[in-house]
Amino acid sequence: MTTLLKTTRHPKTLHLDRLTSLVDRELERALPKSSLSPQVVHEAMRYCVLSGGKRFRPLLCLGACEAVGGSARQALSVACALELIHTYSLVHDDLPAMDNADERRGQPTCHRKFGEGNAVLVGDALLTLAFEWLGHNGIPNALAIIQTLGRSCGTVGLIGGQILDLQAISQPRMSTERTLTDIAERKTAALIIASVVTGALAGRATVAQLRQLKRYAQHVGLAFQLIDDLHDRDGLAQAMGIEAARTHAQRLITRALATLAPMGPRTQTLRQLTTWLQTTA
Amino acid sequence: MTTLLKTTRHPKTLHLDRLTSLVDRELERALPKSSLSPQVVHEAMRYCVLSGGKRFRPLLCLGACEAVGGSARQALSVACALELIHTYSLVHDDLPAMDNADERRGQPTCHRKFGEGNAVLVGDALLTLAFEWLGHNGIPNALAIIQTLGRSCGTVGLIGGQILDLQAISQPRMSTERTLTDIAERKTAALIIASVVTGALAGRATVAQLRQLKRYAQHVGLAFQLIDDLHDRDGLAQAMGIEAARTHAQRLITRALATLAPMGPRTQTLRQLTTWLQTTA
Repeated sequence: MTTLLKTTRHPKTLHLDRLTSLVDRELERALPKSSLSPQVVHEAMRYCVLSGGKRFRPLLCLGACEAVGGSARQALSVACALELIHTYSLVHDDLPAMDNADERRGQPTCHRKFGEGNAVLVGDALLTLAFEWLGHNGIPNALAIIQTLGRSCGTVGLIGGQILDLQAISQPRMSTERTLTDIAERKTAALIIASVVTGALAGRATVAQLRQLKRYAQHVGLAFQLIDDLHDRDGLAQAMGIEAARTHAQRLITRALATLAPMGPRTQTLRQLTTWLQTTA
Repeated sequence: MTTLLKTTRHPKTLHLDRLTSLVDRELERALPKSSLSPQVVHEAMRYCVLSGGKRFRPLLCLGACEAVGGSARQALSVACALELIHTYSLVHDDLPAMDNADERRGQPTCHRKFGEGNAVLVGDALLTLAFEWLGHNGIPNALAIIQTLGRSCGTVGLIGGQILDLQAISQPRMSTERTLTDIAERKTAALIIASVVTGALAGRATVAQLRQLKRYAQHVGLAFQLIDDLHDRDGLAQAMGIEAARTHAQRLITRALATLAPMGPRTQTLRQLTTWLQTTA
């Protein structure tokens, strides 16, 4: 969040700021209080979710809802579910059997702070809460949203990407540009696309709007991973070469903005988010 | 499954047998083919789900649907989701950071066979698929079912029980009868109650029917854990004493059957399952 707002020096920052606050309030509402038994799991869920993060996926979701003529509030529960799912994926990703990471967002990872067994269960709890949260709150198209999210987080999407990533780590020679693009499309782009599509569904999008926004999200999803790899100078940035990766990311962002153009002024939030992404490349 | 059918020497075994086949076919339909990429995760999902198991929760679900006047087929997707969730919980339960189990259902546990990182992701994939599966298939009361399942699998239910169980393992002196009953109610009974309630919801139960069946399931849920502990001579059986635990389990089963009595002949499947449970005590 801090990164996002610091980097976005656009007069419309106030709007993104307001949306971020809405998301944070909804997350606060969805997460059980730390005082509830068993306290450790609730404390750990809050530790992981409320420790910052750009809220990029929830904001994309709200922006997509606005882009099709809905109000951001209509998609708020979906945005919240997306952040819970994103956080679950980070908690499990960081585990010793996966990336074995010590730090996340400048603080000890969940398993370092709360132990490995608890961290597995904290991830499980966040994923479960995300789907439970979509089950109430009277969201338009709730079942289609659950289906879309389930698919994009399953073995064709997020989890499939993580499995391929595990394989790439154990066999570095297999990390070709093609494999890494496949991993990026599943592990990163799938949830970014789902964020946009589910936001649009909550805004009662037409089929044509869904198609247009999905195309936008495909560009943004791959650009996001390229930029992440450019920062860390690994993954696709390493496989393609730094300059080629930067040029490709910029090209994808230009295409993403071009895809929004015919949809008119209601795409303001999405354009702001895309422009912010561009400034980080 | 084998245990269930071998033990049930009732003329109506054929009905349970038919329902078990329906569940197995639905699971076969829901699980992605092993040939799909990434193969290892699909192979592992099938290895864990299709390796036997009594299908007790799915059968309870189908039985509850019949008990309120629905047809078993109406609840088949829900029954399938319940087995996927049950299996995910076993895969994560068996992990080195939890029970560190080597065998499950007479074969190596998922992490022993496919590695720890993959096992975490296989559990995640089964949980995700369960909710995705509930998102299509046009199940009556789908959102209420998703909500009920999410709640019973979350930190007030299944995951909360697992967290308390981890604490009890690390502090054996805390394993009082009261703590162990709390764990049993969350870790075992919650999903058994949810199986009955979601089956009834899929059968468009009335509020009165839901209340009655929930009471039935509370008795069965605790009896199930008591009997499991009696077999292993640990947990509640150890804390209460073997004879006291057996007597309590029988009392709970008698109460469960009494709760079904006023609901008439449509409770046949539930009665058969309860009688089967009784024979195993």
